Amino acid sequence: MQTVRIALGERGYDIHIGAALLGQPQLIAGVLPHPRAAIVSNATVAPLYLEPLREALHAARVDVVPVVLPDGEAHKNWNTLQLVFDALLANRCDRQTTVIALGGGVVGDIAGFAAATYQRGIPFIQIPTTLLAQVDSSVGGKTGINHPLGKNMIGAFHQPLVVIADIDTLRTLPDRELRAGIAEVIKHGAIRDAALFGWLEDNMAALLARDPVALAHVVRRSVEIKSDVVARDERETGSRALLNFGHTFGHAIETAMGYGEWLHGEAVAAGMVMAGDLSCRLGKLDSEGRDRLRALVQRAGLPVSLPPGLEPDRIRALMNVDKKAKAGRIRLILLESLGSSTIVADTPEDALQATLTAAAPR
Amino acid sequence: MQTVRIALGERGYDIHIGAALLGQPQLIAGVLPHPRAAIVSNATVAPLYLEPLREALHAARVDVVPVVLPDGEAHKNWNTLQLVFDALLANRCDRQTTVIALGGGVVGDIAGFAAATYQRGIPFIQIPTTLLAQVDSSVGGKTGINHPLGKNMIGAFHQPLVVIADIDTLRTLPDRELRAGIAEVIKHGAIRDAALFGWLEDNMAALLARDPVALAHVVRRSVEIKSDVVARDERETGSRALLNFGHTFGHAIETAMGYGEWLHGEAVAAGMVMAGDLSCRLGKLDSEGRDRLRALVQRAGLPVSLPPGLEPDRIRALMNVDKKAKAGRIRLILLESLGSSTIVADTPEDALQATLTAAAPR
Repeated sequence: MQTVRIALGERGYDIHIGAALLGQPQLIAGVLPHPRAAIVSNATVAPLYLEPLREALHAARVDVVPVVLPDGEAHKNWNTLQLVFDALLANRCDRQTTVIALGGGVVGDIAGFAAATYQRGIPFIQIPTTLLAQVDSSVGGKTGINHPLGKNMIGAFHQPLVVIADIDTLRTLPDRELRAGIAEVIKHGAIRDAALFGWLEDNMAALLARDPVALAHVVRRSVEIKSDVVARDERETGSRALLNFGHTFGHAIETAMGYGEWLHGEAVAAGMVMAGDLSCRLGKLDSEGRDRLRALVQRAGLPVSLPPGLEPDRIRALMNVDKKAKAGRIRLILLESLGSSTIVADTPEDALQATLTAAAPR
Repeated sequence: MQTVRIALGERGYDIHIGAALLGQPQLIAGVLPHPRAAIVSNATVAPLYLEPLREALHAARVDVVPVVLPDGEAHKNWNTLQLVFDALLANRCDRQTTVIALGGGVVGDIAGFAAATYQRGIPFIQIPTTLLAQVDSSVGGKTGINHPLGKNMIGAFHQPLVVIADIDTLRTLPDRELRAGIAEVIKHGAIRDAALFGWLEDNMAALLARDPVALAHVVRRSVEIKSDVVARDERETGSRALLNFGHTFGHAIETAMGYGEWLHGEAVAAGMVMAGDLSCRLGKLDSEGRDRLRALVQRAGLPVSLPPGLEPDRIRALMNVDKKAKAGRIRLILLESLGSSTIVADTPEDALQATLTAAAPR
């Protein structure tokens, strides 16, 4: 087991990474303020991991309330959140009860937001069971739900007590979701770590084959990179925005298609290729860097262009409502080289249009 | 104008108290991060104060989005909160937009929770227009909505940039709401300030007649007392619970009757009399103190017993789901004397039953 400490002062916490961690209930029981927890999971993950975890916690004398939600981004809304509140209240959970999210990013976001707002905030633990959640969404304290007019528009910052990334849970992950998680790993390399980017170019086959050493490596490096960025800017007022590389394009794609058509990581993958293209058009990134980024995304089996039938103008319009927009202006994250990124507040409209046009599927 | 500074480090802020403050837009414009604000009000308050405030802000070059909600505790729910999110998104409000709550406690709680969770948190200003909101709910950063199974069960701590308590807005307040606000002033005296309690015994008539000097005095003293308690315990892990004097009984009454039958301050008033009675039964408060508390509540025109038809057993059962319950035990705030209070974790059941029985209307 490897442990990465997230340095956020009194809100700091550990991320444990390794195999067979779900069989070590003391990792959870040891940090609970009171031996009572609500495990929030979904209909896909619960049959695989909820009952063993519950038994392990029960053996550690922790009282467990299970809450099973419907699966999918389409359910990341108020109605599903309400199911968590209903269960917490029906079971008379008080402020000493800890919410444990067992699942992917959607479960983590909903359960985390429930924990952030139930009785104005109760403790929270993340057990991410997808690569995307292990390398990205379980780190940084962002929680929330979608609004019909925009993704993640309602939410809160709420840091967990501990994050437990059990590599074994990735064995049951569908291939498509594995690749979607790799998109965020590529992102971490692209914005901050040329060595990780190069490692991915050399080891993509092992990663796609779920080699445990490769998986543990990308989870640990991703967590280190993301947590370093988050520690410098917990509330996303400045440099944390670098983590949104590819996301302004990606969110627009997801909104245009309707949540759930493409996975988040797939939309981000196409968004990163577009952001790389735009970086090149603006003279920030050389064409070799642009091409290497596109090639790596493609080797991971991820999309490199807009989905068929989506007009560039529609994507352009949707980029305006993104949270990253500041006082009406679009802020984009662009690359200066593979491993180095920057925030650009005023993107020239003609270059943006050219990138969107070039991103149409061929 | 008097100003009380709330000492919460980087989240510290000013509370301005005085007459004609709504005509001084620089009090607001001077603290906005960006000259754009959404004013959230309700159908009762908006016709009185929204348009003048909007014009004053417009003159100070602040762009204003008005959001008018239905009035009443019955609307303190997700559907009403959603109206705020819808308006913010429809008007493309970004993270630089400030939410201004113009109204009583319900408006402040909903607007504050919207600000706490819109795009994971945007700036917030309180302009309380009821005595209850000026002396209590606008101080301390609590925001939230009700759940069908419990009051204020969903919410967040979110501190405002500034609070503007314009005494002039109390002229239009219905008598019943004025008295409900006085209940919380009595509470502040009872738990923390014997001098304020004595002042209220001497000046209740002037207060009920809305003498401006009397109003300004109780607002300032209440804000000072409450903010002092909050500064010691922002997230309510300990001594802040003293502010809940009368509230465990009061919330049970409100839940049993259905929100909106009694005003919050009315339920708290009866709850304080019950808590005083219980304090006396447990030998903590002398009978003179108990009787003075009951007499002052009565002189303010507030209820001193349970509403007709409510069984003591029903109230007792509802006290268990209160947020103040810690790991199944009821914690109550009791008085040691007028002006001094304490948290009691294990209340003897027989004394509690005797208090509930004695509180039935005669």
